[in-house]
Amino acid sequence: MNFASDNTSPAAPGIVDALLAANTGCVPSYGAEHAMDELTVLIRDLFESPQANVFLVGTGTAANALAVASVCPPWGTVFCHRESHVNQDECGAPEFFTGGSKLTLVDGDHARIDSRHLQRALEETGCLGVHNVQPGSLSLTNATEFGTVYMPDEISALTSLARDADIPTHLDGARFANALIATASTPAELSWRVGIDILTLGGTKNGLFGAEAVIFFNPSHIAAFEFRRKRAGHLHSKHRYLSAQMLAYLQDDLWLKLAQRANAAASTLANGLRAIPSITLIHPAQANMIFFSAPRSLHRFLRERGAVYYLLPPDPDPDGAEEACLTGRLVCNWQTDSDSIDSFLDHCRDYQ
Amino acid sequence: MNFASDNTSPAAPGIVDALLAANTGCVPSYGAEHAMDELTVLIRDLFESPQANVFLVGTGTAANALAVASVCPPWGTVFCHRESHVNQDECGAPEFFTGGSKLTLVDGDHARIDSRHLQRALEETGCLGVHNVQPGSLSLTNATEFGTVYMPDEISALTSLARDADIPTHLDGARFANALIATASTPAELSWRVGIDILTLGGTKNGLFGAEAVIFFNPSHIAAFEFRRKRAGHLHSKHRYLSAQMLAYLQDDLWLKLAQRANAAASTLANGLRAIPSITLIHPAQANMIFFSAPRSLHRFLRERGAVYYLLPPDPDPDGAEEACLTGRLVCNWQTDSDSIDSFLDHCRDYQ
Amino acid sequence: MNFASDNTSPAAPGIVDALLAANTGCVPSYGAEHAMDELTVLIRDLFESPQANVFLVGTGTAANALAVASVCPPWGTVFCHRESHVNQDECGAPEFFTGGSKLTLVDGDHARIDSRHLQRALEETGCLGVHNVQPGSLSLTNATEFGTVYMPDEISALTSLARDADIPTHLDGARFANALIATASTPAELSWRVGIDILTLGGTKNGLFGAEAVIFFNPSHIAAFEFRRKRAGHLHSKHRYLSAQMLAYLQDDLWLKLAQRANAAASTLANGLRAIPSITLIHPAQANMIFFSAPRSLHRFLRERGAVYYLLPPDPDPDGAEEACLTGRLVCNWQTDSDSIDSFLDHCRDYQ
Amino acid sequence: MNFASDNTSPAAPGIVDALLAANTGCVPSYGAEHAMDELTVLIRDLFESPQANVFLVGTGTAANALAVASVCPPWGTVFCHRESHVNQDECGAPEFFTGGSKLTLVDGDHARIDSRHLQRALEETGCLGVHNVQPGSLSLTNATEFGTVYMPDEISALTSLARDADIPTHLDGARFANALIATASTPAELSWRVGIDILTLGGTKNGLFGAEAVIFFNPSHIAAFEFRRKRAGHLHSKHRYLSAQMLAYLQDDLWLKLAQRANAAASTLANGLRAIPSITLIHPAQANMIFFSAPRSLHRFLRERGAVYYLLPPDPDPDGAEEACLTGRLVCNWQTDSDSIDSFLDHCRDYQ
Repeated sequence: MNFASDNTSPAAPGIVDALLAANTGCVPSYGAEHAMDELTVLIRDLFESPQANVFLVGTGTAANALAVASVCPPWGTVFCHRESHVNQDECGAPEFFTGGSKLTLVDGDHARIDSRHLQRALEETGCLGVHNVQPGSLSLTNATEFGTVYMPDEISALTSLARDADIPTHLDGARFANALIATASTPAELSWRVGIDILTLGGTKNGLFGAEAVIFFNPSHIAAFEFRRKRAGHLHSKHRYLSAQMLAYLQDDLWLKLAQRANAAASTLANGLRAIPSITLIHPAQANMIFFSAPRSLHRFLRERGAVYYLLPPDPDPDGAEEACLTGRLVCNWQTDSDSIDSFLDHCRDYQ
Repeated sequence: MNFASDNTSPAAPGIVDALLAANTGCVPSYGAEHAMDELTVLIRDLFESPQANVFLVGTGTAANALAVASVCPPWGTVFCHRESHVNQDECGAPEFFTGGSKLTLVDGDHARIDSRHLQRALEETGCLGVHNVQPGSLSLTNATEFGTVYMPDEISALTSLARDADIPTHLDGARFANALIATASTPAELSWRVGIDILTLGGTKNGLFGAEAVIFFNPSHIAAFEFRRKRAGHLHSKHRYLSAQMLAYLQDDLWLKLAQRANAAASTLANGLRAIPSITLIHPAQANMIFFSAPRSLHRFLRERGAVYYLLPPDPDPDGAEEACLTGRLVCNWQTDSDSIDSFLDHCRDYQ
Repeated sequence: MNFASDNTSPAAPGIVDALLAANTGCVPSYGAEHAMDELTVLIRDLFESPQANVFLVGTGTAANALAVASVCPPWGTVFCHRESHVNQDECGAPEFFTGGSKLTLVDGDHARIDSRHLQRALEETGCLGVHNVQPGSLSLTNATEFGTVYMPDEISALTSLARDADIPTHLDGARFANALIATASTPAELSWRVGIDILTLGGTKNGLFGAEAVIFFNPSHIAAFEFRRKRAGHLHSKHRYLSAQMLAYLQDDLWLKLAQRANAAASTLANGLRAIPSITLIHPAQANMIFFSAPRSLHRFLRERGAVYYLLPPDPDPDGAEEACLTGRLVCNWQTDSDSIDSFLDHCRDYQ
Repeated sequence: MNFASDNTSPAAPGIVDALLAANTGCVPSYGAEHAMDELTVLIRDLFESPQANVFLVGTGTAANALAVASVCPPWGTVFCHRESHVNQDECGAPEFFTGGSKLTLVDGDHARIDSRHLQRALEETGCLGVHNVQPGSLSLTNATEFGTVYMPDEISALTSLARDADIPTHLDGARFANALIATASTPAELSWRVGIDILTLGGTKNGLFGAEAVIFFNPSHIAAFEFRRKRAGHLHSKHRYLSAQMLAYLQDDLWLKLAQRANAAASTLANGLRAIPSITLIHPAQANMIFFSAPRSLHRFLRERGAVYYLLPPDPDPDGAEEACLTGRLVCNWQTDSDSIDSFLDHCRDYQ
């Protein structure tokens, strides 16, 4: 019953095989391995984008921050949701990599930016010229940090505002495969066709040991990326291990199969929870995460029976009233099995 | 009828005299002039703080950003009002000088931070440890950007929250003299006695050619300041011209007299405006600035008759409806005369 | 006959086994896995340093830059050899991570800092106070980028100068295991016992997939490290794969055995080359790298026969005179076999 | 007998008058004053460059660092002389403003870059691609920090190397007027006609209170300058006082007249010193500074008689041998009078 994070899951068998297969003989380092050529071809094919370029790094924070720094000047601001990973969970990485840009926090339900809020934020930014930071870029997240998704037309509505403001767009796709499954979209339909210039394509949360891709659909944005990556310590010497993982991940629909499993598990779990009277789902469970409100006593009951998951935010007062409601986050991944789900639901029912 | 800014006013006579008096002979450069010793003694005396240290720079943005960078680490966040100068009007200077910190925007009426909002913001910051930026410092502004002031006990209430969170406090006193007059307080009562660690003491808006002081009440914070100032290009070679201005400003209550004039002018103007039916004052006019809402047609009428002031935000649609209300900002300074005020009010009445 | 780099070699069998063993079940992420506790115990034992703390990252550049940034302020300078990795091969990573420090380049034969040059550099740094950058830290490299090593007393001589100047010391140990073998020293004898405060302990070049340790012998330096690491995107979510590699590497002397093989291969190769008349070794071949001068025609001859290695610097004029001498770099690693060495030497002899 | 620095001199009468004249009435702030239009016209005229753009700041370090940051990316390096102000006297300002670039120190006699050294440095930089910092810009200084000057053709020789390497060129002209006098050149002949893209035009050392100009001859470089200046706190609110100084400085040849006086004083002084047996001039005294070697006892003798000047570097051992030779720096400025020079030379002769 471990629902702590998709980061606690192991690497998937197909990825393990690929890593072992890559571990033979002498291979050029620093991204000069042949697999990178293969990966570029594959990315262009999967995304139907003959101009796409791909770079690999070891963590999602690095991918996001390098992507954002590629398009937002130090005196720019990144429009993002208040609950985005770039704002909440990266200890200021975008600010560090850009050399001191701002993030402009935009609101909207369920961690999805509301286009009216974005429009207002764009209008209010930079109108006093040199005294103000200027619009720098738009950064969306799909699937979001609250387990919801944007549909392609919702992304379009937001990126068209960015285009009107003449700023590039970044998509944090740490859970992009989960979003593809949830929206029944193709990679192109959730990225450049709806106005995304740069995509962080996550792999680690969905079955890799650790590898993330930054995909540029617009060649004018890549010039400085390689220097930024190197000087940030994110150009891996034995780069073959990153490319081997990413290649295997994207071949034969493995990424989609893994995400399909995680989303299906979350869906089953959410359906079960909806029937529990003392539990309320507080965001639509569209991808692989569920946020539920329940009394402190229920959370304690579940944890005592071995359920592992986070309260978000952390419980500010563990000795507080038993009936006070707290939010729990349940994350499913490619390995989440039905036994865990059944047990968790059984315990919830036992509590009644 | 120029109410554009206190930055459009000339230097006051006493300051001019002091600058000319300083312009004789060879004098050690880079702050080694004797006047800095005098200034330190004077600051300690005026602020009743024998440990205070003072440094001079040429602009308010430099003073604020250097002050904040002295206490907020790159992975920290500065709690400030959404309408503060550090957030709105410095093109990201705090982010640049700190090496990429965040600003956490706190709300409250009339550009004054509401203590409940601050408390909530502090509680929500950094609770996931290394994943989050950490509380870095609290930055208040007095008088505020909306022409209001904090009373000493209001500052205390906010700085005590900062102290509980173990973060230092900065006061942007670009209009500190105006705040002293408005609150009938002593310098100590509006600074260290109510928990302020670092004060940006403005002079430029209140009659100087250009000089601002950064005053540290806590000696543990000054170690790096001088290196930061130098490498930011803010250590003036002919530093004597900064110290001469600041000394004259603080001697014989000149700063208070100048601020008194500006505040009194604003008070007279505000009283007149309150009697104009089509005008609404939207913030308490406590210091030297007035924000008033009026129809677009009235603003146009006034400007055509020679009144100079800003609409904030700028008029988004100059061809819009005549009756649409826009906000005008009127700033009085040490030189604002009663003729200007009378004329402005006469024109307002004429419009009726 | 691939002598391009130790980065082109695969991961060693013991490391592969450890990675696979770590790939089971749900494990806490972001460094909270149990293996980190084991690793800390092991590091303290191996280094005979009960206070040591260890952190892991994915690349050597990250390890070095984060280590240096932990001790050198933005207005400091890092004393390092002109031929050090931090100066030559990291695209300015130390400057980026420190927020704009300098590197002061110190000379010395064979990429080893000469203590007289260091002493002079220290004396000349910062003597004009706030106008100058200040001594920040000393960064040594062992084994060096030219395949030479410092003996413990040579390190002591340099770190004692640093101690006199009151600056901390960093050792870039990307090839620390090779240095241990070459100097027949214990880990403590090449680190804290000779004055090193922070060690970058490399693994990637010596048989890992990709993992480097930063070891702090002085607890006062670690406060900010974790924030810096996170905001630089170097805190791995599936951190277990880093700790599993590093644990296996340091257990049962695996690191020493792997380095022993690389050094022995280089020694055999160097001995063979010394007998070739047209070849000159230009640095003592003390660890796993050999730098040799040979005519352009010989380099071409060897490469046409399949030898893979770099010319450093790259040949500026490939159509230049055949007899012009160029420097080749041969790197041996844990997997370099005697067949490669024999073939290479045979070809060299054939050329005569 | 004060020869400490041109920074210890007062503002010249013509500048004082201009400042006072500017101190009347309400004037738009932040560079929107009419005088900036006049200044732009004047600069374009004086420099025979219809495309030139000019910006003002308060210090030379700010001017240099902002200029360099406008053209050198964070992963670039600035080629400059080891003895340049940007390297020696700005506490790392270029590194701070660029976001962590390097300086590549180039040698040459008398603080003038030797073109062969520059050529070699350019060849050695960046040849390993992403692993290295890249050529960023060339920064020259005229007159140099050692009181020597480059002739126009000498600048051409260096900037043509920069052009071949495709990097922009900056000239630190803190003493540009002194260089004009010394080389009998026009402003164009010492700047864009010999390949300079950006000029820091100093005023403070030559009779201003404090104002420096950054002149861009190439419009493609100015885009970001204004944002960089503002967020560095270098956009002055009462900007009229900067433009008034700079206008008066450049009108009616005032800058040249002031520099002529300083250079002539230095020339007289140098001629006198050459006749003193125990004194050796160690650099050609071409502008307004003299560097002389003399026994410690002579320096002490002169100082005891009231001469004020720096030893550079500072005396490392004030109790050392009386006959040990130390270098003194004598700086003349627009106000240096013949009495001071005569007295100084008399004392030197008395010492014999």
